[in-house]
Amino acid sequence: MATTSFASVDPRTGEALASYESARPDDVRHAVEAAADAHRAGGLGEPEARVALLDGAAARLRAAGDEIVTVCSAETGLPEARLQSELERTAGQLEAFARVVSAGDHVEAIIDLPDPEAKPIPRPDVRRLLVPLGPVAVFGASNFPLAFSVAGGDTASALAAGCPVVVKGHPFHPGTSAVVAREVGVAAAEAGLPAGAFALLQAGGIEVGEALVDAPEIAAVGFTGSYRAGRALYDRAAARPAPIPVYAEMGSVNPIVLTPGALAVRGAAIAEGLTASVGTSGGQLCTKPGVVFIPAGEAGDAFVADVAGRLGGMDPAVLLAEKTRDGLVAGVEGLDRDAERLTGGGAADGPGFRFAPAAFRARAADLADEPDLLEERFGPVVLFLTYADRDDLLAALERVGGQLTASVHAQPAQEGELLEALVAVLSQRAGRLVFDGFPTGVAVTFAMNHGGPFPATTAAGHTSVGMTAIRRFQRPVAFQDAPEAVLPLALRDGNPRGIWRRVNGELTRD
Amino acid sequence: MATTSFASVDPRTGEALASYESARPDDVRHAVEAAADAHRAGGLGEPEARVALLDGAAARLRAAGDEIVTVCSAETGLPEARLQSELERTAGQLEAFARVVSAGDHVEAIIDLPDPEAKPIPRPDVRRLLVPLGPVAVFGASNFPLAFSVAGGDTASALAAGCPVVVKGHPFHPGTSAVVAREVGVAAAEAGLPAGAFALLQAGGIEVGEALVDAPEIAAVGFTGSYRAGRALYDRAAARPAPIPVYAEMGSVNPIVLTPGALAVRGAAIAEGLTASVGTSGGQLCTKPGVVFIPAGEAGDAFVADVAGRLGGMDPAVLLAEKTRDGLVAGVEGLDRDAERLTGGGAADGPGFRFAPAAFRARAADLADEPDLLEERFGPVVLFLTYADRDDLLAALERVGGQLTASVHAQPAQEGELLEALVAVLSQRAGRLVFDGFPTGVAVTFAMNHGGPFPATTAAGHTSVGMTAIRRFQRPVAFQDAPEAVLPLALRDGNPRGIWRRVNGELTRD
Repeated sequence: MATTSFASVDPRTGEALASYESARPDDVRHAVEAAADAHRAGGLGEPEARVALLDGAAARLRAAGDEIVTVCSAETGLPEARLQSELERTAGQLEAFARVVSAGDHVEAIIDLPDPEAKPIPRPDVRRLLVPLGPVAVFGASNFPLAFSVAGGDTASALAAGCPVVVKGHPFHPGTSAVVAREVGVAAAEAGLPAGAFALLQAGGIEVGEALVDAPEIAAVGFTGSYRAGRALYDRAAARPAPIPVYAEMGSVNPIVLTPGALAVRGAAIAEGLTASVGTSGGQLCTKPGVVFIPAGEAGDAFVADVAGRLGGMDPAVLLAEKTRDGLVAGVEGLDRDAERLTGGGAADGPGFRFAPAAFRARAADLADEPDLLEERFGPVVLFLTYADRDDLLAALERVGGQLTASVHAQPAQEGELLEALVAVLSQRAGRLVFDGFPTGVAVTFAMNHGGPFPATTAAGHTSVGMTAIRRFQRPVAFQDAPEAVLPLALRDGNPRGIWRRVNGELTRD
Repeated sequence: MATTSFASVDPRTGEALASYESARPDDVRHAVEAAADAHRAGGLGEPEARVALLDGAAARLRAAGDEIVTVCSAETGLPEARLQSELERTAGQLEAFARVVSAGDHVEAIIDLPDPEAKPIPRPDVRRLLVPLGPVAVFGASNFPLAFSVAGGDTASALAAGCPVVVKGHPFHPGTSAVVAREVGVAAAEAGLPAGAFALLQAGGIEVGEALVDAPEIAAVGFTGSYRAGRALYDRAAARPAPIPVYAEMGSVNPIVLTPGALAVRGAAIAEGLTASVGTSGGQLCTKPGVVFIPAGEAGDAFVADVAGRLGGMDPAVLLAEKTRDGLVAGVEGLDRDAERLTGGGAADGPGFRFAPAAFRARAADLADEPDLLEERFGPVVLFLTYADRDDLLAALERVGGQLTASVHAQPAQEGELLEALVAVLSQRAGRLVFDGFPTGVAVTFAMNHGGPFPATTAAGHTSVGMTAIRRFQRPVAFQDAPEAVLPLALRDGNPRGIWRRVNGELTRD
């Protein structure tokens, strides 16, 4: 891990913006040890301090909004309006997790009172809650420089759980990372938390991230990014002397199914919505619909032509970085082997890293021989797969691997049986089913699930968006026959925190 | 994977009992495919059928109790009274999970109603529940031939979650496995479940287990056993093209701390309890206390002598198998290098596989140079570690790795500050803290946690005992703007299942 510097680049022009120094091995060690010290001292243990940190960070990010959006837009090429919205989401996420911590139910307190008559052995007093797992390494995402980076969902949920966080910032937006980290750092200090509660490490290469995953003090990893990088982190963490969980969200093709009924009744509106979902933010969203199943025939052909025409009429998208653009060009060239190119798909003229939105077509039945059709193409690219009939469609869907989302446009009143079959097959492969809508634009709520079976993520049991994301960074501890004085408040008689608890099997607030 | 046969052996005599044929590759494939078919068809999806299966299996196991206990006692050398108690626990576990499924709260239903005014984007209708992960491979444990084998806690919780189960039976008790599987199979058929809902594979070697973990259809692994085997399964599952979670409970040394106060006031009673906890079931329990921290000095010496005398006076224990006995003898010989042998510790005279309960002593400070002192010795062996003072004790405890349990005997009124410090350090390394008691005898309740940081388990976030064990085998799915007709009952308006749900952030049964 040599000392190296790297530059941020404006993808709209291709010009370098500023130079940043990569963290050195000592920086990694220092950050990790400080995080471990904070954890050992229980420094994030007090809910009140975590609430102050989360609310404080949200307020400070909003206050620094103009600076953040200006820096970030230059580094990512993303429009200011999008970044303003993302900043609001980021602040809102932090505040939403603060409310979760305030309410306190996330410790999932369970109390079983003693029962000397229990069979086969007398039952002691057992009380359980969820405690922080330990220091968490968070990897910033390229495509959400705010909502899934330094102060994004992984960081917010880990801090809410009570875990110190060490962020590895994404090298595509180091200036953004620095400003956001500055504000979070001040908020942590103002909340009275130790310095180890939060740290940012910047780096141009992969060595800092590797050192972070290898550090024995790190207890879990949060990641959003490519399959290749996510899998590499997962493998590395699994090979440690003491393996740790990696919560890697690695994207997917987010299949959309159009039924004949929906196509007939609402084809034009769906085409409009689909174009926006594919093209917004240069298609650089984990939930971008990459594959759309369309009925074969005239109506389907017209729909495909409609969307291809709309995409072809869009301005080329400025992608996040040269590497993003080159990766997409290569991915799309691969698609040329197995599918028909309808529009776009090349590096576009003009300065910076531009790409013309693209549409391709193949047959759903081709998935049998060409599984690569289902690879994610990260950018404004959509592949239409035409199906002959219900059986052809369902057979093709059985070939689809783990997905973050799957969407269905159907006419429930007329196509109830088909819809039921689609829900059965899709719910076994996707983390979220969207009906008569599009998967992009993930609401941050209690019920949201942003996850799914591998390869969408490395941990199908959890979500990285929404309030239950906190559960990734907690582990249960049971107290058996504990004196009242050593019990956490959440488990004491009289319920001093006023939280929901399961007592002798029944949920109660008493 | 050649066709081979293997024999069960009576460890009390060393004589072979009966011969069993190892499953062939085709048997593995058939079982896994049937499980996948059952999952695909949603065969375990109806809670009512799962309740019937779990209750039915419990009733059938009780009815077959005499046969099971007789076969099992001959194969394991465990006393009939212990096995009767374990059978009751096994049946009770199945029934307790049936009640969880009946109540229905385990799907953790969450509903967020739409909010067109939400910022930064309008909020759709999002409803989330936990669904079955898919077919689960369960590895039977040698030391709990009933409660953690074919119809044990892993199987019960996976079936309760709605996952088909393929069990790899432990080769030390194939006759027991066969009888239990027969009863579970009948219960599954009587509950109207497809044949793939449950299967047992027997094998003498490791190839069947490896094939099971490799099978693409398997979605998760439950395991209880040694560190070596658990880690091997974890590594194998992590190296799959599509990695899957391995919930491996690999035991630990379950440290006990005696404070000077407790030693002075209750030394004799603690010595009696400790002897029973070390010696019961030949010490072959995951929660057996393997290491006890004792104040240096006269009172501590007397306590150690008392326990060593009691253990020395016990009959040699019949261990589960020749391999168990040989492994323990080797482990204890390793201990001789770094600790003083006080009593026992060798293969004992007499037929079969006997071992004389053993006690060792070293200094807590020795852990700095001899981390091997903290290796698990699976059998009736205890190591006393003497500490000079509070700092010596706490420094030694910082060297202790992940544990299933940690126990403290203290006098809270006089030693409040010390107790607080002990809870702080122990709660960061153990899954369960026991106060003034012993960790053996794990109550199966809602609040129980039987888990802990690595190397106690490969999944610190979860428990393998107690009602929340079901969460290991579930994953979230969100439904966005779904038509009422395709929503699972748990998520429909009007709450037809009458379960607790979080609606717009608040728990309610309405």
